[in-house]
Amino acid sequence: MSDSTDLSLNRVSLDEMRLFAKEMVEREIERHAADGLGIVDYALWSGGARVVKHSEPFTGGKTNWFAAKGRGSVHSNAQKVLEPSFGEPGQCFALEGSSGFVEIKLRSSIVVQAVTLEHVAKSVAYDRSSAPKDCQLTAWHEGPDDDASMRAQRGVHMAEFTYDLDESNAQTFTSHSDQPLVNIVRLSFSSNHGNSALTCLYRFRVHGFEPGTPSSLTFPT
Amino acid sequence: MSDSTDLSLNRVSLDEMRLFAKEMVEREIERHAADGLGIVDYALWSGGARVVKHSEPFTGGKTNWFAAKGRGSVHSNAQKVLEPSFGEPGQCFALEGSSGFVEIKLRSSIVVQAVTLEHVAKSVAYDRSSAPKDCQLTAWHEGPDDDASMRAQRGVHMAEFTYDLDESNAQTFTSHSDQPLVNIVRLSFSSNHGNSALTCLYRFRVHGFEPGTPSSLTFPT
Amino acid sequence: MSDSTDLSLNRVSLDEMRLFAKEMVEREIERHAADGLGIVDYALWSGGARVVKHSEPFTGGKTNWFAAKGRGSVHSNAQKVLEPSFGEPGQCFALEGSSGFVEIKLRSSIVVQAVTLEHVAKSVAYDRSSAPKDCQLTAWHEGPDDDASMRAQRGVHMAEFTYDLDESNAQTFTSHSDQPLVNIVRLSFSSNHGNSALTCLYRFRVHGFEPGTPSSLTFPT
Repeated sequence: MSDSTDLSLNRVSLDEMRLFAKEMVEREIERHAADGLGIVDYALWSGGARVVKHSEPFTGGKTNWFAAKGRGSVHSNAQKVLEPSFGEPGQCFALEGSSGFVEIKLRSSIVVQAVTLEHVAKSVAYDRSSAPKDCQLTAWHEGPDDDASMRAQRGVHMAEFTYDLDESNAQTFTSHSDQPLVNIVRLSFSSNHGNSALTCLYRFRVHGFEPGTPSSLTFPT
Repeated sequence: MSDSTDLSLNRVSLDEMRLFAKEMVEREIERHAADGLGIVDYALWSGGARVVKHSEPFTGGKTNWFAAKGRGSVHSNAQKVLEPSFGEPGQCFALEGSSGFVEIKLRSSIVVQAVTLEHVAKSVAYDRSSAPKDCQLTAWHEGPDDDASMRAQRGVHMAEFTYDLDESNAQTFTSHSDQPLVNIVRLSFSSNHGNSALTCLYRFRVHGFEPGTPSSLTFPT
Repeated sequence: MSDSTDLSLNRVSLDEMRLFAKEMVEREIERHAADGLGIVDYALWSGGARVVKHSEPFTGGKTNWFAAKGRGSVHSNAQKVLEPSFGEPGQCFALEGSSGFVEIKLRSSIVVQAVTLEHVAKSVAYDRSSAPKDCQLTAWHEGPDDDASMRAQRGVHMAEFTYDLDESNAQTFTSHSDQPLVNIVRLSFSSNHGNSALTCLYRFRVHGFEPGTPSSLTFPT
């Protein structure tokens, strides 16, 4: 507590402390109530974003889903990756094996600044070996007449990151600077935390700004 | 911090402060968990309330919804106005233009004391120009044999208020005193915050008490 | 505040207090975001648990539900007992009368250590007379070839407890020690808080551990 002069300056009245605590609690709950993070998400399903492509979904080994539904199909659970939940285990999109991807059409064309990958919280999870680990992010812009089969070739490398089971369940990663305008992002994972059968994606968010508007993303200092 | 005597009285131990902070945090989270405000809502869908009438819904200019469905029909999205959500953008009922209304049959007949109008939080919104601005509240009691087409004429003026984009996203407004017992309320908006195409209603709540029961509504001092 | 020596030791700087308050708020919100309690729940629907049997559901006296659907049927609202909600009234499974039961197949075989019974929060409830009061918990293990009609006979008594309307809405009760491995639990209530027509179950959770894994349940000191 340093010397006695500093100490006396730092002393605080009950009223000051109450005011500080009250404001902080209100701010944090407001942030929590605002979709958990309080940051605009351009990959939100209710905002118009959609999963347009993904690797083979996990079906418990019963069927080859793509063989049954066709390779261009999108699984109904894919929507969960773009939606909030109550944070309970099981509300995820499960993909076959320990590597795979999802491609997301954003609600509008933006400059990507960061992404947030979220897995179920440690305190309520039965098992977190299905969490993705090493991830890569690519993105591109697709016009209405572009050939969808050419997508991946046009992808610009945006970020690579590792989801860490010891950190908080929603982890935000910034993208490299000087990004072009994009409307499709592809999240690929090349490993998970030990589950050889499946990898679960709970939620993925994309942060940035539309051209001509201020960025909504401010990082805490 | 006034004089030295007061200062010494105000000094606070770590344990006192911890206890205070703990109690406040628990109280605020409890309130947040209790449907956000911790105030009884007689317009809640799961409590039995229903939207019974509304102005033309927004369909992106593709169709005239009322022409297709009939003027007495209620749009499936109307239910969103009476339900909680995760606070994400897009989970609303969009009405055509910058003025319109919804009429809500409450779960029971009550004396209305206040209403709460909620829009998406600033921190996660793409655009808040679709928020309602100048609002009017009327209400009346409707018996089982009353002619529904006569509704609006019987309405009693209850309140007028302005939704302010700089305030918190859930804004509570009190009604004029000496209200009669009502089971239908009508929220009308005569302007919005700049969007000429549509106005979005996220959630609307009605607070008050049933005759013979104490009011659950206590305003913080 | 004891004597002057202790007092001086207890004095706290603004920075210390801020740090403490910030950490506490973050921890509590994290817990709230983690399905409300931050404790693993083996009765969670999204984790694979299911209601397999229950007493007569409340239908407002219109029909005898079991007569219409068959005694082995499970009502679609039963799922609500195993799912999180926004904490609004009405999101429950209503059973006929003031006594009844639900039987739940857990997601896996566990040693039960505690259960949590949750009713709607006082601050938003219209009426809490439908809350269960005196409860009993039994449990057993059922193999794939066991005769389901023999279930109840094999039940081991695990706990009895009383849901208290003056306590917090989610109340956790520990089970007796030395429990066997079970995969079915039966929650019975023999009374409620005054409603003769129906009893509402909002949510029921089961806590414990799978053999060979550490318990996730730590009780606060």
